[in-house]
Amino acid sequence: MYNSTMEVQIAVSKVKKYATSTSGDTVEIIERPNGGVSIVMADGQSSGRGAKWVSSFVVRKVISMLADGVRDGAAARAASDALYTERGGKVSATLNILSADLVTNTLVITCNNPSPVLLARDDKITQLEEESIPIGIYRSTRPVINEVNLNPGLTVVVYTDGITHAGSRTGQSMNAATCLESLLDSESPSPQFIADALLKHALKMDNDRPVDDISVIALRVISQDDDDPLKVQAQIRRMAVSLPISTQ
Amino acid sequence: MYNSTMEVQIAVSKVKKYATSTSGDTVEIIERPNGGVSIVMADGQSSGRGAKWVSSFVVRKVISMLADGVRDGAAARAASDALYTERGGKVSATLNILSADLVTNTLVITCNNPSPVLLARDDKITQLEEESIPIGIYRSTRPVINEVNLNPGLTVVVYTDGITHAGSRTGQSMNAATCLESLLDSESPSPQFIADALLKHALKMDNDRPVDDISVIALRVISQDDDDPLKVQAQIRRMAVSLPISTQ
Repeated sequence: MYNSTMEVQIAVSKVKKYATSTSGDTVEIIERPNGGVSIVMADGQSSGRGAKWVSSFVVRKVISMLADGVRDGAAARAASDALYTERGGKVSATLNILSADLVTNTLVITCNNPSPVLLARDDKITQLEEESIPIGIYRSTRPVINEVNLNPGLTVVVYTDGITHAGSRTGQSMNAATCLESLLDSESPSPQFIADALLKHALKMDNDRPVDDISVIALRVISQDDDDPLKVQAQIRRMAVSLPISTQ
Repeated sequence: MYNSTMEVQIAVSKVKKYATSTSGDTVEIIERPNGGVSIVMADGQSSGRGAKWVSSFVVRKVISMLADGVRDGAAARAASDALYTERGGKVSATLNILSADLVTNTLVITCNNPSPVLLARDDKITQLEEESIPIGIYRSTRPVINEVNLNPGLTVVVYTDGITHAGSRTGQSMNAATCLESLLDSESPSPQFIADALLKHALKMDNDRPVDDISVIALRVISQDDDDPLKVQAQIRRMAVSLPISTQ
């Protein structure tokens, strides 16, 4: 019963654009109806409340379909059609879905986001760069989908274009793959450590005044300790959120 | 802009009943449309897939309403009516909603769950025990709602009846309030530490074969370090999930 040997760990770090009221990025995590977990990230065009409305609309559409058992690719297409219909093709959003699917024991990576996906097996990094376009602008936009086995040592990082644009005010640019490579050199970094480190690097390049909303998701598959005397405890699912409160 | 002084931290630890395929408890966290975060927990009657269907139905109803801006109490009533209608009053579920509402700077605690809510200010614990009944059985079931200010030092713990029933196979019973009291004696325990410790205590009383699905939510409001040289970093929102994979 309790012979779990792996754990999927996912972490998100987010910050809003400097001097805006709200982040235009939305990230939500839900349990999949047939086992596993999905994390859905959208970045609405422009910033502030308008962008938030868009990204939240997209994420809610996708989550409600995933909860009904709709496959990820179909959910992404439907979200694109819904946004296109709602806003007449005038507003775009990027969309990423990462699903740890325990039925197939795979990670399904769905992208409508020009930013690349970083994928590492142990410390060897590849970038998934097949071109994908944001949703909401054209009829029948399709996502790019990659599926990889859930094996220990797998690391996947996705992010919104706040990472890509970091440093642009001063003519710099951030190489997320190089950053990830150096992070993976340390002793089993946690996903939260990776997401935080990439975000903080971007903040530094923006002199702590982010030029855009930034969201980073890091996912790792970790091998469980087989010698754990209390194997049942390895079956504990955990979730955590921390939310700064700005008292202005 | 970045004069944040508090952080709301929420953690969940969950385990399923021994020798069942799936937990009948569902817990999801979502961002509130006007600022803040809500965590929704339901425990479906009985266990296994039937119970999972019920708890997942309830949580999805509540989350979709909260995302539309519906207030928590109305969402709980609507979920009760929807479950009553769907299953003809034959199936019940317990429901808890914890909402850190950044519009009012309060924590709204909504209960349709006979298990008490533990509330601590610093290390003084009170139990919110006003009787509330599970949803789905009667027409017009109302939740019990408490609202408290979001101040540093606040700790709130809610759980499903797997905690209440822990040890029942051997005639023992767990006093969650006493456990929490001793946990709060340690140096600023994190919410994940608190949720894990309560869950592990329950597992121990069940000899690591939990007699019921167990879910524990711990929420703490933490004072931010005013001396943080990079205040912007205090504005980072974080989310994390870890999911054991059972390879049978």
